[in-house]
Amino acid sequence: MRLTVDTINPHVVAAKFAVRGEFAIKSEEYQAKLARGDKDLPFDQAISAHIGNPQQLGQKPITFFRQVLSLLENPQLLEKEDVMIDALDYKPDVFSRARFLLKNVGSVGAYSASAGVPVIRESVAEFLKRRDGYSADASKIYLSAGASSGITTLLNIICASPNTGILIPIPQYPLYTATLSLLNATYVPYNLDELKHWGTDLDTIRESYNAAKASGTDVRAIVVINPGNPTGASLSEEDVRSILEFAAQENLVVLADEVYQANVFIGKFHSFKAVLRKMQEEDPKYGGVELASFHSISKGMVGECGYRGGYFELCGFDPDVEANIYKFVSIMLCAPVIGQCLVELMVNPPKQGDPSYELYKKESEGIFEGLKQRAVTLYKGFAEMEGVECGEPQGSMYLFPTIKLSQKAVDAAKAEDRSPDEFYCLKLLETTGICVVPGASFGQKEGTLHFRIAFLAPGVEWVGRIVKFHKDFMDKYRG
Amino acid sequence: MRLTVDTINPHVVAAKFAVRGEFAIKSEEYQAKLARGDKDLPFDQAISAHIGNPQQLGQKPITFFRQVLSLLENPQLLEKEDVMIDALDYKPDVFSRARFLLKNVGSVGAYSASAGVPVIRESVAEFLKRRDGYSADASKIYLSAGASSGITTLLNIICASPNTGILIPIPQYPLYTATLSLLNATYVPYNLDELKHWGTDLDTIRESYNAAKASGTDVRAIVVINPGNPTGASLSEEDVRSILEFAAQENLVVLADEVYQANVFIGKFHSFKAVLRKMQEEDPKYGGVELASFHSISKGMVGECGYRGGYFELCGFDPDVEANIYKFVSIMLCAPVIGQCLVELMVNPPKQGDPSYELYKKESEGIFEGLKQRAVTLYKGFAEMEGVECGEPQGSMYLFPTIKLSQKAVDAAKAEDRSPDEFYCLKLLETTGICVVPGASFGQKEGTLHFRIAFLAPGVEWVGRIVKFHKDFMDKYRG
Repeated sequence: MRLTVDTINPHVVAAKFAVRGEFAIKSEEYQAKLARGDKDLPFDQAISAHIGNPQQLGQKPITFFRQVLSLLENPQLLEKEDVMIDALDYKPDVFSRARFLLKNVGSVGAYSASAGVPVIRESVAEFLKRRDGYSADASKIYLSAGASSGITTLLNIICASPNTGILIPIPQYPLYTATLSLLNATYVPYNLDELKHWGTDLDTIRESYNAAKASGTDVRAIVVINPGNPTGASLSEEDVRSILEFAAQENLVVLADEVYQANVFIGKFHSFKAVLRKMQEEDPKYGGVELASFHSISKGMVGECGYRGGYFELCGFDPDVEANIYKFVSIMLCAPVIGQCLVELMVNPPKQGDPSYELYKKESEGIFEGLKQRAVTLYKGFAEMEGVECGEPQGSMYLFPTIKLSQKAVDAAKAEDRSPDEFYCLKLLETTGICVVPGASFGQKEGTLHFRIAFLAPGVEWVGRIVKFHKDFMDKYRG
Repeated sequence: MRLTVDTINPHVVAAKFAVRGEFAIKSEEYQAKLARGDKDLPFDQAISAHIGNPQQLGQKPITFFRQVLSLLENPQLLEKEDVMIDALDYKPDVFSRARFLLKNVGSVGAYSASAGVPVIRESVAEFLKRRDGYSADASKIYLSAGASSGITTLLNIICASPNTGILIPIPQYPLYTATLSLLNATYVPYNLDELKHWGTDLDTIRESYNAAKASGTDVRAIVVINPGNPTGASLSEEDVRSILEFAAQENLVVLADEVYQANVFIGKFHSFKAVLRKMQEEDPKYGGVELASFHSISKGMVGECGYRGGYFELCGFDPDVEANIYKFVSIMLCAPVIGQCLVELMVNPPKQGDPSYELYKKESEGIFEGLKQRAVTLYKGFAEMEGVECGEPQGSMYLFPTIKLSQKAVDAAKAEDRSPDEFYCLKLLETTGICVVPGASFGQKEGTLHFRIAFLAPGVEWVGRIVKFHKDFMDKYRG
């Protein structure tokens, strides 16, 4: 055998990515069993709450988006506009949008330019201008295969040696630490403040930064996930501003993961780009800040994870560095073109007065309200549960409650060679079919335990299942 | 400025990927200019012959594929089967296939399992069984975002240190050397034999291997591209067998890039998997060979590059290594789901007797014949050209002619700080709007010059443009 786990790339072996690991695999096995009609599981439905995958849990796609895509897939349908409108309820703006895209994209079966279809990059720039009130440059926008591929691109560029450090929040989405493992670069963790709704705390960040610098690490960038994953936090403008201030001071690149920007229930989303431009207007000393911000079609009310679409925007980057980013993305040729088209639809949805507008509005508001209701239901469920604490849902698709477990439970976990949160989540999965991810997979402050749960599954019955499981678990392991 | 070309990841800076580089960018600029109605270029059409992108050059997608995809995009159309059949010429098997896929995939907007939709992996296994006459195991098949992402996955796994060497053909598709640059691993080149239609020559391979071993390189794998890119070669069964023999002897992993398996004009495609299984039947000493083979929806008669779909199959890999491959692909969540569905359609097209069969057959045969004709036309064009030699087209989508240039041309190139093949291709692009890639981008034997040209553009007029350019170029630089 040429390749063994002892001889392959040790950085791959070292990488961890639990959101798709053991529990996810077990959950898929349960689903396959149930689909086969197997009756020996103690539940009749397996719920994937371990990942933000709305349509797998029954969220319906936006009709306008999918109607346009059906025409892009089969442009012959354009020749039968009357039939599609009369019998199939397509609206004229579905046709005009499909024609516009096909004219500019060509076939969706052709590779696009490496950084994406030019006209779609322009649509994104228009969207950013409307969102932020500041101009955006299409040539600084790169269409990517989901936000994940954009983020790995930037980390590949920035990480030059094992000594390169990147500030990453704790808890974080594990793409960051997994990619740093693969790149053999240094993870410089900074704790988010659970007591302040998982907001950023600049003193904590500075402390982590200084400690890393003191130990010789070349800290080059800071990652912020806003709204938070797994935390659900939604940062205030002041928090965003203070991070940019710090980045300017310490000459750090800012990587702003803003894929949940449309999933904000309390307050308002403050983009790093808008706040940066405002600061730059106020004071030229912020002119040199390098910011990369990421967005995706997988989240928000779009929820089209399967298409792998997204984009990133660069501000303040050196043109020669941009040329290397272009080269890096070109090696994979281009982002999926249908996903690029969905990016265009996301950033440029039907407007008031357009034939498809009313339905679009109704559907997207329905999704938003549904998510909010489920978040609140789950939050109330947690409020009932002994030893569980959880802040009010602010944004994203997750809650990240703290759990306090008895010593007996901790010992039982140890006996199975698992961390207590892992043990708890495994028992939850085995008992209820509900798959969540232990806090350890995202990082958590020493001595605390959490889990991440997506509030996407329809109905409320499953929340009752968690409440009941928890009670039984606590009783079983009562000291 | 935090990031400069001197401080970012030096392996990204070192990587080269010319098929999407300077010339491709210039070609895109020409196309944009012509689209704007600009008249100051010396040609009225820019042809992208630098990359195998069939639909960008007017190849029509297979109707059955796109009809099914249109239903996957908008499942509401399934409810109007009668309308779609009567007015829009959909056939009943389009509906049954779409229903089958939706039942098993769920929404195409949901993430799939990390290695792909289980039922699609099973379809691929069935296809491999029909193709090779040997069973295939769905659990060893991973759906990927084009073959490119599969190839980078395997290279990421195999390359453990700068000392890891991978045997790569010269000339090669530059994904290989670019990825080895990024991974900071060692490229061990072996020359293909131009005099034998760019076949593999075992003595040459062994010589490269021994030299690398002698210098301390840990050579772990050999890459073979069959049919060849950029060469168009189609390997004989004996060539495939001798490479597997050598791999068994030297304990090398075989990476078989077989994305052009349907593009074979002379002889027959021999898959590494089929030849390996035959050898394993004959002699148990071949039992331990580790083979990864790659396929794609971007090439063949499918030509759906924009979807980023493909798969790889593993034979003989250690289960713990497979677990690391699973983890690695899971970090990017999943391959684009619509692309996965297209993989299913490619490997399981309409069969004789199915309502869509006749049209499918007519379309795919038409594409095949069209490609063959264009290849032959181009080949004949090269035969007329002074100082150009090119073997008969055997397979893939490219010709890779040798060009002999005068000393005067070589000097003129040097004066512009370009290699002679680069200079020639640049002048071709500037004069005719036809973009091809210099041989240097793929690697070529010392002292030889080539270029790669895709034979995808419709018509024959453009071949005449090349012939005329070449004559003028040769005359201009005559010694």
